[in-house]
Amino acid sequence: MKYDTIRWKNDKVEMIDQRLLPAKTTYVSCRTDKDIYSAIKTMIIRGAPAIGVAGAYGVYLGVRRSRAKDWKGLKKDVDKTVKYLAGSRPTARNLFWALERMQGIVNDNKGRKVTELKKILLDEAHRVLAEDKKICRVIGDNGASLIPKGANVLTHCNAGALATGGYGTALGVIFSARRKIKRVYADETRPRLQGARLTAWELAAEGIPVTLICDNMAASLMAKKEIDAIIVGADRIASNGDTANKIGTYNLAVAAHYHKIPFYVAAPASTFDLSTSNGKKIPIEERSGLEVKKIGAEYIAPKNISVINPAFDVTPAKLITAIITEKGIIRKPNRKKVLGAIGGD
Amino acid sequence: MKYDTIRWKNDKVEMIDQRLLPAKTTYVSCRTDKDIYSAIKTMIIRGAPAIGVAGAYGVYLGVRRSRAKDWKGLKKDVDKTVKYLAGSRPTARNLFWALERMQGIVNDNKGRKVTELKKILLDEAHRVLAEDKKICRVIGDNGASLIPKGANVLTHCNAGALATGGYGTALGVIFSARRKIKRVYADETRPRLQGARLTAWELAAEGIPVTLICDNMAASLMAKKEIDAIIVGADRIASNGDTANKIGTYNLAVAAHYHKIPFYVAAPASTFDLSTSNGKKIPIEERSGLEVKKIGAEYIAPKNISVINPAFDVTPAKLITAIITEKGIIRKPNRKKVLGAIGGD
Repeated sequence: MKYDTIRWKNDKVEMIDQRLLPAKTTYVSCRTDKDIYSAIKTMIIRGAPAIGVAGAYGVYLGVRRSRAKDWKGLKKDVDKTVKYLAGSRPTARNLFWALERMQGIVNDNKGRKVTELKKILLDEAHRVLAEDKKICRVIGDNGASLIPKGANVLTHCNAGALATGGYGTALGVIFSARRKIKRVYADETRPRLQGARLTAWELAAEGIPVTLICDNMAASLMAKKEIDAIIVGADRIASNGDTANKIGTYNLAVAAHYHKIPFYVAAPASTFDLSTSNGKKIPIEERSGLEVKKIGAEYIAPKNISVINPAFDVTPAKLITAIITEKGIIRKPNRKKVLGAIGGD
Repeated sequence: MKYDTIRWKNDKVEMIDQRLLPAKTTYVSCRTDKDIYSAIKTMIIRGAPAIGVAGAYGVYLGVRRSRAKDWKGLKKDVDKTVKYLAGSRPTARNLFWALERMQGIVNDNKGRKVTELKKILLDEAHRVLAEDKKICRVIGDNGASLIPKGANVLTHCNAGALATGGYGTALGVIFSARRKIKRVYADETRPRLQGARLTAWELAAEGIPVTLICDNMAASLMAKKEIDAIIVGADRIASNGDTANKIGTYNLAVAAHYHKIPFYVAAPASTFDLSTSNGKKIPIEERSGLEVKKIGAEYIAPKNISVINPAFDVTPAKLITAIITEKGIIRKPNRKKVLGAIGGD
C-alpha cells in the first residue's frame, strides 16, 4: 500500500482524510483526544478496525499532558478520556475493544510512575496498530482458501487497507487470493459512497480488475451467475454470529441466500462483542439525513423531505456462510462456534 | 397535479424537463421528431407510458411538414419516422406500442388525403395522451383494493404522474389508496435518482407522507416489518409475466419474497409485449458509465474505473404477487393469465 490509513509521526497521529479520496490525498494531524473524537465522528477515518486504532491513540493523546501525580490520578484521566472517546460513534465494537485495552494496560501496571504509564500507553497504541496490520494478513490468508479459482467476487462498502491499520479484512482476503480472482464488483455503497470512493480506488491501485456498480444492481448480477462469492467486513459481531455492517449488507445477504451464493464476513476477533447475545441488541447509529439528500454541495431531493439514514444493518448468522477471523474460519456460525473460536481470548 | 408531464400547446409538444426537477420547473419545447428523439434519449422525459405519448406526438411532428402527395407517400414517411424514433430507447414497450398504433391509424385510413391524414395523426397522439391519463386512474382504483388500511408502502424509481400522461401507475395506486396509506418509502433509485428527485417530490406535493431511503436500506426496513406492500411500475412485461423495470426492482422483489411481503407491478396493457415469451428476451438498455461515476459535475469514483450501468433488470413472474392493469388484476401472473387478461386487446 502506498498510503497510510493512520500513522504516528512527529509526536502526533496522522490520518489520510478519507472524505476527500479519491480526488485528494491529504493527511490530517491529530494532537489531542478532541482531534481524534472529531476525526472518528466526521469520518475522516472510518472502518471498525481503523477506528479502534484511532481510539487507542486517542487515549494516549488525551492523557499525555495530564498533570496527574500518581497511578490513581492517571487512571482517572484515562477513564475520563475513554468515556469521552466512546461517544464518538456507537456501533463499531473495535473502538470499545481498543478503549478497554488501553484501560486494561493501566490496570496491569498499577503503581507505576505517571511518566512510565504515558510511555506504556503510547507503546500499547503502537502495538494495537502493528497487530491490526498483522491480523489482517492472517485473515486474508485464511480467507483466501475459500475463494475458488477464476472467481468474481462482490464486496460492499470498504473493508480494505483504509478501514484497518493496513491491508484490510474483506479486501485482505481479496489481496491474498488475488491470483484466483477474475474480477471484483464493488458496490458504490450509498449514502457515503465508500465503495466508489475508497474500494474502487484501493483495488485499482493494486492492479486488481474492479467494476463499480450501484448497490441495486447486485441482485441482477447474481441472477446472471456473475458473482461467485460475496465478502464484506463487519462493525460488530454478536456472540451468536449476527453481524452489524454497513447499511446494505443485509440486503446483499438476502440476495446471496436466494441465489445460493456463499456470503462471507471477514473480521478480527476485536470486532466480536461476546457480551451482546444477538444482533437485535447491537446499537445502530442513525446519521444526518443530509448525507442522503445532498451529494457534495448539490441537493438531490426536495430539501425538506423526510429521510432515514441508519449507518448499519444487521445480518443474522443464518445468512452467513462463514466468518473469517485471524483465529480461523467459523463456518455456519452460531453461539457455540463463536465462543469456541473467539471466547478463549 | 399542478404540472404537465407532456402537453400540446401552440402547435408544439411541451415537456417538463425531468432532469432538472425538483430544483427547477422548466418546460422544453419539441417541434420536430428530432426534438422528441433527443428528449427521450437524454431523459428529459422518461417513464414507459410517458415515452409512449412522446413517441406518438413524435410521429406526427416527423411528418407534419411532409411533402408526400398521397397516402402511400405519407405512409412511407410515417414508417421512416417510426423507425427513427424506435432507436431512441430500447426497453420500454410503450414506445413501440405507440409507434405501431400511429402506423396502424395510417393503415386504417388508406386512400385518405395527406392533409386529412396529418390531422388524423395529431388527433391520435392527443388520444394516446388522454387515454393514458384515464387508464392510470383505472389502474389506481383497481390497485387500491390491494392496499391494507394503515399500510406503509415502498416504491422504486418513479411511476408517477411524471412517468405517464398524468396520475401515474404505481403512484396512481398510492394516490387512489391515499386514505389507507400511512407512509410511502421512496427508494432514491441510483444512478439517476428518480426516486429522490421525482417520486419524493410528487408525493410531498400531494401531501402524502413520504420518507426517502437509499436503495440498500429497503431490505432492512422489511426485516423490521416496516413495509406492508411494494409497488412498482414496469417498462416491458413479457407474455409469461416476467417484468422489466428500473434497475433495482429485481433486488426488491427478491427481498420481498424472503420477507413474505406482497410485490405488485402496476402497468397499462400497452406495457405488455405478448410477442416476447419471457424476460430473458427483453432488450436491456446499457447507459453511460458516467451516470454512475458522476453526480452533477462531481466525480464520486476514480475517473478511469470500469462501470456497468444497465438501466433495467428483469423480475421473474414467480416473484410478482400481482400485476395491476386497467383490465383488472392479474394475480400470480403466468402466460395463461396474461394472455387471458391482455391478449384479447
